[in-house]
Amino acid sequence: MPAISPLAPERFPLLAPIAGVRLGAAAAAIRYPGRDDLMLAELAPESTIAGVFTRSLAPGAPVLWCRDCLKGGKVRGILVNSGNANVFTGRAGTEAVAASAAKAARLLGCRDREMFLSSTGVIGEKLPVQKLLDALPRAFAALSPEGWERAARAILTTDTFPKGASASTEIGGVPVRLNGFAKGSGMIAPDMGTMLAYLFTDARLPHEVLQPLLAASTERSFNAITVDGDTSTSDTVLLCATGKARHPRVLSAGDPSLKAFRQALEGVMIDLAQQVVRDGEGAQKFVTIEVSGAQSARAARRVGLSIGNSPLVKTALAAADPNWGRIVMAIGKAGEKVDRDRLKVAIGGIPIAAEGGLVPGYDEAPVARAMQGRAFTLAVDLGVGRGKATVWTCDLTHGYIDINASYRS
Amino acid sequence: MPAISPLAPERFPLLAPIAGVRLGAAAAAIRYPGRDDLMLAELAPESTIAGVFTRSLAPGAPVLWCRDCLKGGKVRGILVNSGNANVFTGRAGTEAVAASAAKAARLLGCRDREMFLSSTGVIGEKLPVQKLLDALPRAFAALSPEGWERAARAILTTDTFPKGASASTEIGGVPVRLNGFAKGSGMIAPDMGTMLAYLFTDARLPHEVLQPLLAASTERSFNAITVDGDTSTSDTVLLCATGKARHPRVLSAGDPSLKAFRQALEGVMIDLAQQVVRDGEGAQKFVTIEVSGAQSARAARRVGLSIGNSPLVKTALAAADPNWGRIVMAIGKAGEKVDRDRLKVAIGGIPIAAEGGLVPGYDEAPVARAMQGRAFTLAVDLGVGRGKATVWTCDLTHGYIDINASYRS
Repeated sequence: MPAISPLAPERFPLLAPIAGVRLGAAAAAIRYPGRDDLMLAELAPESTIAGVFTRSLAPGAPVLWCRDCLKGGKVRGILVNSGNANVFTGRAGTEAVAASAAKAARLLGCRDREMFLSSTGVIGEKLPVQKLLDALPRAFAALSPEGWERAARAILTTDTFPKGASASTEIGGVPVRLNGFAKGSGMIAPDMGTMLAYLFTDARLPHEVLQPLLAASTERSFNAITVDGDTSTSDTVLLCATGKARHPRVLSAGDPSLKAFRQALEGVMIDLAQQVVRDGEGAQKFVTIEVSGAQSARAARRVGLSIGNSPLVKTALAAADPNWGRIVMAIGKAGEKVDRDRLKVAIGGIPIAAEGGLVPGYDEAPVARAMQGRAFTLAVDLGVGRGKATVWTCDLTHGYIDINASYRS
Repeated sequence: MPAISPLAPERFPLLAPIAGVRLGAAAAAIRYPGRDDLMLAELAPESTIAGVFTRSLAPGAPVLWCRDCLKGGKVRGILVNSGNANVFTGRAGTEAVAASAAKAARLLGCRDREMFLSSTGVIGEKLPVQKLLDALPRAFAALSPEGWERAARAILTTDTFPKGASASTEIGGVPVRLNGFAKGSGMIAPDMGTMLAYLFTDARLPHEVLQPLLAASTERSFNAITVDGDTSTSDTVLLCATGKARHPRVLSAGDPSLKAFRQALEGVMIDLAQQVVRDGEGAQKFVTIEVSGAQSARAARRVGLSIGNSPLVKTALAAADPNWGRIVMAIGKAGEKVDRDRLKVAIGGIPIAAEGGLVPGYDEAPVARAMQGRAFTLAVDLGVGRGKATVWTCDLTHGYIDINASYRS
């Protein structure tokens, strides 16, 4: 396992139990010896679920399974293995999913289609499903309301730290809790609910309410980060609600009583998304890109991702080089409207360019100093409208090459 | 200057004179001391021109100038400086272009708007235009029908070798010559006539015929290569025809008498485009991506570029790792239709995957051996149609990081 990212939080947060949720893990030796690589979550009967999945046109077998099960809107369990993505494995992959769901459902006493599955790791190699099936009873036996960190660790692949976040909020004045954990550090791109993330709440919300809440928050969290612009075939974000909190009934995602919950959900998801960037393969710097003055929020996000995905910008970030010309290049290639004569660029709060050129008396030294920090903000204003968006990314370093030129060996 | 790319051709090709074309160069010390950084080409009166330019919405001042002049369809001179891109330099940039064109036009005895200009190098720094104006008479004095290699060298920036190509062909049975040179190794992406390329012929073709010829060939050459997916703000490809060859008149790009010329033009442009990839920053391997079975040629090209732009694929190429799962990932994210159960992947001519999984008895060793070579082919068949395209790319190595984390220092 490589050294822990210098951008990692100090410790895994304390995740208090959520009524109706138990978590377990086990070592199935699917690829990684001597560590947990199988995660099982158990949800109380009548729990509801929302999900967003990769937009890849070559998704993995577990994603196809989940998409199908999501129509039911109900969940009793989530089963995740790391080390093998079970993608492009043909009929064997589909059969492995069905067998895993069936065995887990028997253990949990639920229907197969109330089991949601994810697999993450190498693509195109057959999942050693028997190892998974053999380890399942051990993960079941380990189920505990306190199993959060162990569960978060079991789903990691090239990650260097487990990622968790939580919030306490309310619906209709009744306290509600929200916990989540995620994994991801390579193949991170903005084309969907990036990588794997699992969110749990004791709120009492039907699938029809949960789904739009999750979709909206995904746009401003997992869809606003990028490490390398690549899109996984397995990306999955699931939000489960056990209904144990006794708040008044909520019938639509737009209900005013959900205001605090919506904010808490978005906060937890942004926290997890930022942790994924902070664990970006080879990342040495965490960079917040703030785009304003765009024609729309969508245009702003496209420009932000164009900057955050540009290898030339990302290598300049690594070098703490205020090479704002590359930023202008990345803005230009995004295909969104920009007023060349009103464009503004600032780094670390220091204006660099405005009105079609460098600001008068521009001094590069303080900008370079700001960029030597572990985290800083890069702000651009396109000068054409009021659209805004924030995107998070990391730098591109030798570490990325090291990790990815040897991942499988 | 970094070491010459291991993928470079053995030597610069012999480019024979073309009637009506003279080339010169001079050292203006714009950024690089002790080498030519200014190139001047002189075209005979009545020469015609076609051009394609960056699709960036933040193009450089010289690109805006050229786009405007192209409406006239006539050319008497091309002036290119390296070391400074004159991009995002506000009014000073526009004035620098006008002053340079005016002085060059006086030397060549033509109208300002018959001068085409390019600048390449750092973005966002003011072009030291006086240095350029001072050096112009020396470039003019150096004009020679044999100045091809010197001209090709003067326009280089991070390139490690000059790029030239030529062809002898015919129109209506009359011999016609075609020479070209290009530069580019970073900020190479498929969004237009990538980087700088200049093509010269003694054919007698009006602008209206030249322009569609150039546009069509650009699609299958400079728009089919990628080094890092970034799009320059200065990309320019110009094709000039002096009209000295005494072939029968040609009135349309579809004229049957142009068949050989079209092939020659495309051949020269593909040759130059491949040389740009071979000089990709940090490149150690030259990879041809052949996509077939797509819904259309355009879909095939998108899939090819998605593969060629993926950092995860490119690092696997660097490691000679037959990680075809990453290829499947890149196909999936391209957004084009693919039949998961008919998809085929082969590297170096060795089938890896077919019918939704690995080929029976697949042995990775010979594939890894093929990938250890300097050049190999990666072929995918999407299994849904008859669309085909070829794309060229290089691997992503530590060298790319080295070059781009220190470009300006």
